[in-house]
Amino acid sequence: MNVALCAIGDEVRIGQVINTNASWIAAACTSCGCNVREHVTIADEAQHIVATLDRLRQSCDVIIVTGGLGPTHDDITKDVLTSYTHDTLVESADWLAYLESWMHQRGRELTERNRRQALLPSRATVLPNPHGTAAGMMFQHEGTTIIVLPGVPTEMKAIMEQSVLPWLVGCLTHESAPTTTYHTMMTVGIAESTLADLLGDPTVFLGTSTLAFLPNYLGVRMRIGVTAPTADARDNEVQRLRAYIIERAGRFVYGEGETSLAEVVGRLLAQRGETIAVAESCTGGLLGAALTDVPGCSAWFIGGVLAYSNESKIAQLGVDPALIEQHGAVSEPVACALADGARARFGTTYAIGITGVAGPTGGSAEKPVGTVWISLAGLHGTEAHVFQFGNDRRINRERSIGTALGLLWKRIR
Amino acid sequence: MNVALCAIGDEVRIGQVINTNASWIAAACTSCGCNVREHVTIADEAQHIVATLDRLRQSCDVIIVTGGLGPTHDDITKDVLTSYTHDTLVESADWLAYLESWMHQRGRELTERNRRQALLPSRATVLPNPHGTAAGMMFQHEGTTIIVLPGVPTEMKAIMEQSVLPWLVGCLTHESAPTTTYHTMMTVGIAESTLADLLGDPTVFLGTSTLAFLPNYLGVRMRIGVTAPTADARDNEVQRLRAYIIERAGRFVYGEGETSLAEVVGRLLAQRGETIAVAESCTGGLLGAALTDVPGCSAWFIGGVLAYSNESKIAQLGVDPALIEQHGAVSEPVACALADGARARFGTTYAIGITGVAGPTGGSAEKPVGTVWISLAGLHGTEAHVFQFGNDRRINRERSIGTALGLLWKRIR
Repeated sequence: MNVALCAIGDEVRIGQVINTNASWIAAACTSCGCNVREHVTIADEAQHIVATLDRLRQSCDVIIVTGGLGPTHDDITKDVLTSYTHDTLVESADWLAYLESWMHQRGRELTERNRRQALLPSRATVLPNPHGTAAGMMFQHEGTTIIVLPGVPTEMKAIMEQSVLPWLVGCLTHESAPTTTYHTMMTVGIAESTLADLLGDPTVFLGTSTLAFLPNYLGVRMRIGVTAPTADARDNEVQRLRAYIIERAGRFVYGEGETSLAEVVGRLLAQRGETIAVAESCTGGLLGAALTDVPGCSAWFIGGVLAYSNESKIAQLGVDPALIEQHGAVSEPVACALADGARARFGTTYAIGITGVAGPTGGSAEKPVGTVWISLAGLHGTEAHVFQFGNDRRINRERSIGTALGLLWKRIR
Repeated sequence: MNVALCAIGDEVRIGQVINTNASWIAAACTSCGCNVREHVTIADEAQHIVATLDRLRQSCDVIIVTGGLGPTHDDITKDVLTSYTHDTLVESADWLAYLESWMHQRGRELTERNRRQALLPSRATVLPNPHGTAAGMMFQHEGTTIIVLPGVPTEMKAIMEQSVLPWLVGCLTHESAPTTTYHTMMTVGIAESTLADLLGDPTVFLGTSTLAFLPNYLGVRMRIGVTAPTADARDNEVQRLRAYIIERAGRFVYGEGETSLAEVVGRLLAQRGETIAVAESCTGGLLGAALTDVPGCSAWFIGGVLAYSNESKIAQLGVDPALIEQHGAVSEPVACALADGARARFGTTYAIGITGVAGPTGGSAEKPVGTVWISLAGLHGTEAHVFQFGNDRRINRERSIGTALGLLWKRIR
């Protein structure tokens, strides 16, 4: 089953908003067994919408359209789709009742503007939206299914999970064509080309399967793609490739499937009955945020100190002022003192300290922008390592987080 | 000048990676005065790449292709484009010298795999890449310019800034067709439909200009679009609409152009010579991370405590254990005590405290998941407000940050 995604909206087209919906929908449809053929982003412009639908219908069974369903005048998707499918808008008594109860619960009156959201195409299937006032819609049009969803990510996701994905799975169970399964393995601490060399000639070990390398600031992900007609055949081939990769690069693989390095580290800490605290200078909370992004983290994350100023390093973490004076705030002894201080104050098994020159200013010849010291304190003692991440503030901060988590992972894996 | 963006890569197509390149390039091209007509994402598949280029060439003057230039076997973009433009690959002595010095600086040998990156199309213009080993390329093909860039965001951005944007600006100064200018105004503390009602009938006040409403967790952004042949005419119309909006909704507008609420708050603090600290429970560092994302924040951000456990609230911020026992950790008195504790320990003008039930577990009938108390301590005393953000952990945490920054902004604006 071929699926195309079509985002409608000038905010996405001119780059004011990152299209996170496309990756979410694509991943959800792919994991159901659909082939996502293409994503496209276009303007809120009737002619371009119609031309795009005409084109995508030639190669796709399902088109998922997002955006342009809001209550303001710039939202035209519903009108365009209704006219495209030769339908008319009628007021839905059910949706009106839903809108009234929605507003009532929030202590608001149903305005004329909101009431217009109950005007829905007469033949489309209405898809309930638990998080908003815009209805999702499913149109059947000359052999293609066109699904229209709000652009607000929570609303889109809720309708996908509640209505669209179950429908897709139902359609796919009647199909018997070869399907592609993907399996992801995540590495940390190795460069993309070194990893590729470690694995050897892909034309020899891959056979008809595919392997993609996806580097980011946290490491390199490898995605295995296997196409076969049965689930068993796909599973066997995935296992064969997994074993091949693990034999050669297993020491760099921190996880498989959809899991983050913070989740892996958290699971390990929970299993070991151990805890962690953080002491962050240049990352200012980003490491704590990554760790507490993991549901259930209260079992192993105790707390931390954001010691941005030198005074706070001294007063809140007990760093010796003489260390800062002699070596500077971005130095091995201060990094160690940060981790030691956090570990002592929060009484945890481990603590991570980060101190660096995030940029754009603050660099020197000796310690240029991008110099970051990362330390790990634990039962083994306290270690610190220096990194040079380059001159982009955001990347320095993100790579610091990935590197710090990688250090901890190597220690407790 | 019509521009199309084409991302090539299965990792984007199947949703493993969010296509942040598209929004960055679209915003950069739009601000130069280009009309970004469409973004498209397709597979690393020669036939689909060729069909897409054929189609986009019919409506666009420039096509910017990203992705598929890496050193591994799954990268086919360079080969496909070379063949598409009837060119051949030859080893570039310049690029080879660059690769050698790149590897030498990093203490690595130039491998056969790396050396293949010096094979470049004979007629394309090579665009230097200061952050990586893959060359950018500019092809002239039957009246269309096709620009090919690496998919790694830092490398793409560097080549765009160094080579592509200056070239685009040079092309555009010879054009005299009407151009569209966009101007953005950001609001906090008001819902999209209330804001639209406040502004009145768009057909009356907009004229030939456009106004889009873009809600996210930090507030609603409004984007004015003005099309006119001269810069003066565009500027006058933007000023007319700005004045209209400020008159009706000015008290919700925290900024204009490309600025974040954290930047606005930071600028105000710096102007006032004031400082801030944070005490975060459920957000675990996210507020500190948002504030320290602003370059130069050391002038006004002193530090903070991540007090995830009750013990750390007591020991690190001096919260009275009796308060937690009587009212629970998610309560007005504990929220106030967190902010007061952070303000006292870091000696700042203000401190923000956040304590809530982020979910997915930990909720109760009285305090369901999504209940968040946010407090602000300052010279005016300490205030706390309760919010109900719903049942999604990530959204709860993000809305907490936006709301906390909005509270501080209202106090110091």
